Amino acid sequence: MKRIPVGVLGATGMVGQRYLSLLENHPWFEVVHVAASPQSAGKSYEEAVRGRWQMESPIPQNVKKLVVKDAAHVEEAKSCRFVFSCVEMEKEQVRNLENAYAAAGIPVVSSSSAHRWTEDVPMLIPEINPPHLDVIPEQQKKRGWKRGFIVVKPNCSLQSYLAPIYALEQAGYPINQLLVTTMQAVSGAGYPGVASLDMVDNIVPFIGGEEEKSEKEPGKILGKIENGKIIPHTRLKISAHCNRVPVVDGHTACVSMKFAGKKPTREEIIRIWREFTSVPQELKLPSAPEHPLVYREEENRPQPRKDRDAEKGMAITLGRLRECNVLDYRFVGLSHNTIRGAAGGGILNAELLKAKGFFD
Amino acid sequence: MKRIPVGVLGATGMVGQRYLSLLENHPWFEVVHVAASPQSAGKSYEEAVRGRWQMESPIPQNVKKLVVKDAAHVEEAKSCRFVFSCVEMEKEQVRNLENAYAAAGIPVVSSSSAHRWTEDVPMLIPEINPPHLDVIPEQQKKRGWKRGFIVVKPNCSLQSYLAPIYALEQAGYPINQLLVTTMQAVSGAGYPGVASLDMVDNIVPFIGGEEEKSEKEPGKILGKIENGKIIPHTRLKISAHCNRVPVVDGHTACVSMKFAGKKPTREEIIRIWREFTSVPQELKLPSAPEHPLVYREEENRPQPRKDRDAEKGMAITLGRLRECNVLDYRFVGLSHNTIRGAAGGGILNAELLKAKGFFD
Amino acid sequence: MKRIPVGVLGATGMVGQRYLSLLENHPWFEVVHVAASPQSAGKSYEEAVRGRWQMESPIPQNVKKLVVKDAAHVEEAKSCRFVFSCVEMEKEQVRNLENAYAAAGIPVVSSSSAHRWTEDVPMLIPEINPPHLDVIPEQQKKRGWKRGFIVVKPNCSLQSYLAPIYALEQAGYPINQLLVTTMQAVSGAGYPGVASLDMVDNIVPFIGGEEEKSEKEPGKILGKIENGKIIPHTRLKISAHCNRVPVVDGHTACVSMKFAGKKPTREEIIRIWREFTSVPQELKLPSAPEHPLVYREEENRPQPRKDRDAEKGMAITLGRLRECNVLDYRFVGLSHNTIRGAAGGGILNAELLKAKGFFD
Amino acid sequence: MKRIPVGVLGATGMVGQRYLSLLENHPWFEVVHVAASPQSAGKSYEEAVRGRWQMESPIPQNVKKLVVKDAAHVEEAKSCRFVFSCVEMEKEQVRNLENAYAAAGIPVVSSSSAHRWTEDVPMLIPEINPPHLDVIPEQQKKRGWKRGFIVVKPNCSLQSYLAPIYALEQAGYPINQLLVTTMQAVSGAGYPGVASLDMVDNIVPFIGGEEEKSEKEPGKILGKIENGKIIPHTRLKISAHCNRVPVVDGHTACVSMKFAGKKPTREEIIRIWREFTSVPQELKLPSAPEHPLVYREEENRPQPRKDRDAEKGMAITLGRLRECNVLDYRFVGLSHNTIRGAAGGGILNAELLKAKGFFD
Repeated sequence: MKRIPVGVLGATGMVGQRYLSLLENHPWFEVVHVAASPQSAGKSYEEAVRGRWQMESPIPQNVKKLVVKDAAHVEEAKSCRFVFSCVEMEKEQVRNLENAYAAAGIPVVSSSSAHRWTEDVPMLIPEINPPHLDVIPEQQKKRGWKRGFIVVKPNCSLQSYLAPIYALEQAGYPINQLLVTTMQAVSGAGYPGVASLDMVDNIVPFIGGEEEKSEKEPGKILGKIENGKIIPHTRLKISAHCNRVPVVDGHTACVSMKFAGKKPTREEIIRIWREFTSVPQELKLPSAPEHPLVYREEENRPQPRKDRDAEKGMAITLGRLRECNVLDYRFVGLSHNTIRGAAGGGILNAELLKAKGFFD
Repeated sequence: MKRIPVGVLGATGMVGQRYLSLLENHPWFEVVHVAASPQSAGKSYEEAVRGRWQMESPIPQNVKKLVVKDAAHVEEAKSCRFVFSCVEMEKEQVRNLENAYAAAGIPVVSSSSAHRWTEDVPMLIPEINPPHLDVIPEQQKKRGWKRGFIVVKPNCSLQSYLAPIYALEQAGYPINQLLVTTMQAVSGAGYPGVASLDMVDNIVPFIGGEEEKSEKEPGKILGKIENGKIIPHTRLKISAHCNRVPVVDGHTACVSMKFAGKKPTREEIIRIWREFTSVPQELKLPSAPEHPLVYREEENRPQPRKDRDAEKGMAITLGRLRECNVLDYRFVGLSHNTIRGAAGGGILNAELLKAKGFFD
Repeated sequence: MKRIPVGVLGATGMVGQRYLSLLENHPWFEVVHVAASPQSAGKSYEEAVRGRWQMESPIPQNVKKLVVKDAAHVEEAKSCRFVFSCVEMEKEQVRNLENAYAAAGIPVVSSSSAHRWTEDVPMLIPEINPPHLDVIPEQQKKRGWKRGFIVVKPNCSLQSYLAPIYALEQAGYPINQLLVTTMQAVSGAGYPGVASLDMVDNIVPFIGGEEEKSEKEPGKILGKIENGKIIPHTRLKISAHCNRVPVVDGHTACVSMKFAGKKPTREEIIRIWREFTSVPQELKLPSAPEHPLVYREEENRPQPRKDRDAEKGMAITLGRLRECNVLDYRFVGLSHNTIRGAAGGGILNAELLKAKGFFD
Repeated sequence: MKRIPVGVLGATGMVGQRYLSLLENHPWFEVVHVAASPQSAGKSYEEAVRGRWQMESPIPQNVKKLVVKDAAHVEEAKSCRFVFSCVEMEKEQVRNLENAYAAAGIPVVSSSSAHRWTEDVPMLIPEINPPHLDVIPEQQKKRGWKRGFIVVKPNCSLQSYLAPIYALEQAGYPINQLLVTTMQAVSGAGYPGVASLDMVDNIVPFIGGEEEKSEKEPGKILGKIENGKIIPHTRLKISAHCNRVPVVDGHTACVSMKFAGKKPTREEIIRIWREFTSVPQELKLPSAPEHPLVYREEENRPQPRKDRDAEKGMAITLGRLRECNVLDYRFVGLSHNTIRGAAGGGILNAELLKAKGFFD
């Protein structure tokens, strides 16, 4: 099978680097185009990231020599069947840029937050809300786009708790209160990002904008489609406290939850999590984890360094499920923020789109 | 004024070292006796801690040459008017040891958890429950002790949230639900304590026994005396999740709280905290912080390295007070775990006992 | 091809865990036997390492259910064609244990330091001294061993500088002075190993016994065989200063070197390093890196987190070659201490032995 | 005694903050003026550093409300008897700025590297080269300055090894070769400075410009005055390798040294170091450490977190003196880079100038 040619916008940043690493040897997609800011444009990719490549594996051979293009030059991406977008600019600029690609007939699979609250743009987690893809024709019609469209992914922080909550909802145990405290990895802030003076013998109990996203985005993901728009779900109340800790990759969340109705037993919850599978597993998408939710029995897990790479960084690892003295149950969730929470999640979105025929 | 001669049991451990550092040049107390396990007994203190002294300041001159005694030899402590106890042994052994000192007429001001649930032993935070000292005569009578008695301090983890909660209760705003997630420093586990392999690029979402203490001890501290016993308070429900993070000193707590009755405004809460003072401030105890609660307006504080030393490590620093989507309000609290949470707290307890005439 | 059945002695420790991870899916060897201390004996491997498994990947499926044996029971290993030894005991005990296996006809490929200075036991780095295997028949004859024998590997610290030095020697540029300062990862000390209190906001400028090994072992590795014994080389003087730093894996060495005779140019040295290959590459051993020495041009490399995994952790990464104001040249070398420096190195030794017919 | 009014140029940066902390309650100097870049000018100091104050102690009360001035407005500093300069700009700009203050009659005590190689500007370590102050009249005459002049301090990295080398030279044991590997704290790079992604589970074996300064500056400090200029010393050859490690404060140096002539015994060296005192001790300057060199016998010291605060951060702590297999001896030196190596060193320079009458 011939691989589909794709591009990466924002290819020199942390998330862009992760996209390129994960797409090396991808069975369906082949990176043929890398774009970034005007400063990088014209250089070979290798040159453009000299001294800034942060991945543990080397720059993929086929990417090294690609000439970086200016992301603003949409026409230079015309060889791409679609692009991944992880550009770092003002939201308004990102929106305009992504619109320009879609208008030019190039679908955009975005990790950016710019279009997350556009009402006819799906905010996709393939295990949770594939039906939201149904708004794409509306999105295209309203804007006069032909082949182009935009799909986004949510913020990395909520990946550690939303899928396990959704699994319980699906099993007949709706939840209405969630109190979450996250301990988030520094890679989430990009490079150079967080200063080392803040991360040696220290933590920082604040991440700008993160709590709002952690509290609000789940509503849209769990929402319903009405008249071609996604109407956010409102039952589930979330209170999030987000901290930065000296960890390279892997966001940990301490979660307390209250059920809206009947309350399952501890064993029932663990069984539901362990048996949970969804559309990506049924479709056998190349990046889909066999088990999206891994529950560990050890009393001191999950831990970021030891569990973030579960199922190649695409599984969410859970542990410490126990009763809560204030709400019903407590647990710990962990996900790899630059794989499941960013580039890996974006690739899984693209795989779902491909499987559903959106790139035909 | 001649200083009161005191001893430190468990003088070679982390908390013992902190006691000795803080007592250097203390205006009321003078360390004349250091005791530890039989392995250390007979060595000079300097020798006994060679390669294990963890404090940033050097071993106090007057302590260096003291010969370490076997803590089991109670009679060797007879020159002490009282002893600080921070021995690390099985609880049963600690209880027996502390009882032996009290029986020999030597009061024990303990940091150990052994006697925390003995019903006529006060678990003291001088800003909160000085009236609990009233059980001491009962304690002595029941056991036939003359001059000896035992007072303990609570676990370090709750220091970051209990005093601000108490301040609100005192101001007429009782609280009935508390959801706490702590991020605790490695010094809390002693030396060698936590393995570096668990603390480089990692956190551990579990500390053995810590959640139970964090949830249960506040009940006794806020309790009432009936028939010479402390009857725990039961209104306040606490759910605690305790994590270990790569920080040397300073426990951070992310707290959500729900008021039992009327709910103060944000400004009112901050005012109450900033104006809070109590018995140690009235009595001008030497180690009492002028402001037990410090509220910082910056959005990213408190932080362990930058705030733990507020008021010489005896103040609790608060910040980020804001509404909670699930309970009423959220905030962050931070305290120095080996000063306010251990040795400094123990010394403040002793100062209160002295001021109240218990060492006369 | 049927895989050779092998055992791992000391399978529950850090190095043992790494052996098991690396041997999962090995083309030549299959782990059929795991042995450890009497405390672990009788448990399944999974149980025996519960809460202590430190690898990023899960316990290999085929090993999980193996029942751990007591390493002292040699007869239980009789199904193994040979064993890897990484037991952690007193040297004398290790020597006796390894001798017992060899005497029972089971060859021992050891990572332990116990037999490193036994004069007829090769201390093997397959890229440097394969001819030392010639002493094995002498070793067997002297002790009356038939099929059994012992081969050891050197200390992890010297892997970061000895191969590049040897490559220069081979190319006709002998060296006679080496000043080395290492910055070593905490995994080198095992688990729990180094206390986190020593590794948060700190480094430790000392590692017990490490400097002696770093200075002395290269002499034997570069030695000559005379009368069935390895006679250490004496020209090369090494001065080593070993530090512990808060890095999980990867030993970095800052090296200054002085040539005994003529001095190559910088370009010549880099060319020699980049072109260097040896016996493992010629024999295409499964774990042999294609390029044992990788030279990076960036001014701030090698770095442990970014370079330790080069060629699956089996390559040594070099950088910053420049003139030295005191000796001739300076450079930085880095190797993965638990892969190239321990388990990976041990496996490469076994692969060389297999290729040379020692297991026929 | 009335305190001398002083200013701090570059008051909002890391070194500026340290100056203000150390000058709180200084017996001779009182900060009356704080200046920084135009962006900070016009704000209160408290406002100007909001969210960027990095010290463990709070902003000094008397400084909080000072209005920050634009450092380029020399005339606004006219109330200062002299200024400390730690501005962070291009060297050329710093030189011009410092010249402007001197020309306006305001002496400059600088931590910047801009004027370090101006031949009639002393690069001062008060324990080593107070006679270099003799060039000040020449400096003034040549430029037509009346009361103004410039004195600088050297780079922080060499503080960990130069004083012990000088002590040996003074005692009759000149040294001609020095091989140094430093492990430097992140505070040396300012804030935000080093990215946390480079300092979690990592070290960086390179610091731009640092090796050159570490190798070259000692020559000027040890130089002789001829014709009103400082002529660098040339005997001592230094080779420095500088690494960045995840430590907040405290530069560690592993040093090997070769004596030019006779070689003292180990005991002799330790005695010389322990007995070493110099001009600041004789003059009893307020910031002078009683013992500039502290030698520790423990095999694993000095360590940054435990030793950097020796003598309030003004002493250099030494340890691990032992023979070297390549040069003569090896040892480890450690100094606090933002106290002795920056602000504390600058204040000691000013104290020496005051004591010598340069501010009369």
